[in-house]
Amino acid sequence: MVLGKVIGTVWATKKDEKLVGLKLLIVRHVELDYSEKSTFVVAADSVGAGVGEIVLITTGSSARQSELTQNKPVDAVVSAIVDKLDVES
Amino acid sequence: MVLGKVIGTVWATKKDEKLVGLKLLIVRHVELDYSEKSTFVVAADSVGAGVGEIVLITTGSSARQSELTQNKPVDAVVSAIVDKLDVES
Amino acid sequence: MVLGKVIGTVWATKKDEKLVGLKLLIVRHVELDYSEKSTFVVAADSVGAGVGEIVLITTGSSARQSELTQNKPVDAVVSAIVDKLDVES
Amino acid sequence: MVLGKVIGTVWATKKDEKLVGLKLLIVRHVELDYSEKSTFVVAADSVGAGVGEIVLITTGSSARQSELTQNKPVDAVVSAIVDKLDVES
Amino acid sequence: MVLGKVIGTVWATKKDEKLVGLKLLIVRHVELDYSEKSTFVVAADSVGAGVGEIVLITTGSSARQSELTQNKPVDAVVSAIVDKLDVES
Repeated sequence: MVLGKVIGTVWATKKDEKLVGLKLLIVRHVELDYSEKSTFVVAADSVGAGVGEIVLITTGSSARQSELTQNKPVDAVVSAIVDKLDVES
Repeated sequence: MVLGKVIGTVWATKKDEKLVGLKLLIVRHVELDYSEKSTFVVAADSVGAGVGEIVLITTGSSARQSELTQNKPVDAVVSAIVDKLDVES
Repeated sequence: MVLGKVIGTVWATKKDEKLVGLKLLIVRHVELDYSEKSTFVVAADSVGAGVGEIVLITTGSSARQSELTQNKPVDAVVSAIVDKLDVES
Repeated sequence: MVLGKVIGTVWATKKDEKLVGLKLLIVRHVELDYSEKSTFVVAADSVGAGVGEIVLITTGSSARQSELTQNKPVDAVVSAIVDKLDVES
Repeated sequence: MVLGKVIGTVWATKKDEKLVGLKLLIVRHVELDYSEKSTFVVAADSVGAGVGEIVLITTGSSARQSELTQNKPVDAVVSAIVDKLDVES
């Protein structure tokens, strides 16, 4: 999984019918100190994450293992909201 | 998922029989301001997207979860046409 | 899917038994104008592609969805021979 | 699989219910001499790895093949603790 | 699939029980002229490859399609030993 920061939402009327009802979040990848990288991903929300929150993103086929995303054309899901990181380096 | 802009179509007569009937779109990856990146991908169309439209691309095994792409050798699908992005940064 | 140009063949006597009988092509990734990138991939052939041809490569688990590659340790397959690209940019 | 060094833990209260009970480790990618790269991944622990240990990380759908991670939204798992590398170069 | 050169072995006592008995090879990625890249991967051996040999590596879920790796947390497998490459460029 990778770390990201929710920065927005995608609006799409015309879409695969299996995507109807899913909230699609724009998530910037972040470093361990939460500084933002230049890359981003669009991920389905499975935990009620809001803009500004640091989240865990699960990608690939594993993104379809949450209850909300099963059998859907989703390759990235916000699977957790991060409280804090304990890093010893 | 990632964001892209449809810029064209692939024509192929000789192909895996499961690809027959699928429209294969050339999609450039874009930034959040829709500026084009140098990279692109060929994605099957599942939503009737046209040239110039900003779209959502689903990749990997999840690209086979749309009705049109099931059990086909497709690793990228246009799964939505983007109306707009709400970005707070 | 990505675009490539077939530039050669891999010869391997000692291999996973499921790979026996599969033609393994060396394919250079190409740009939209067919200029060659520095990267390449080894892909199983499912369409009878020859050296010099521009092809479509399907990767990941989707590479096992062609009749020839089912249930085989293959993560890339040549799934179409490209006739031409219609690009409006 | 890739090599990494465990450097910490992710704390997350609000998460996909299938992630409850899983320990989420922060793992920096390392070179063959164990020097740290700049990249990192968050991986579920299946072997009881601790901070400072060099580990093997399995990614993608294969990360769900350990007993602890089956059917869970996990795309990376610590699948072994490395004792040593025998490298002849 | 990608090309690599076997340069060593990983030793790990504490590991996922499904990895017991599998030989874990360290494989450097190589160019078409077999010159070594800076990147490497740890791959399970399914063909009896030895140090110094040029091999084919299958990644992702397809790495679990060899008899030895089925249902195991393995995301890369050495699926063939390369005799030679025929490259016309």
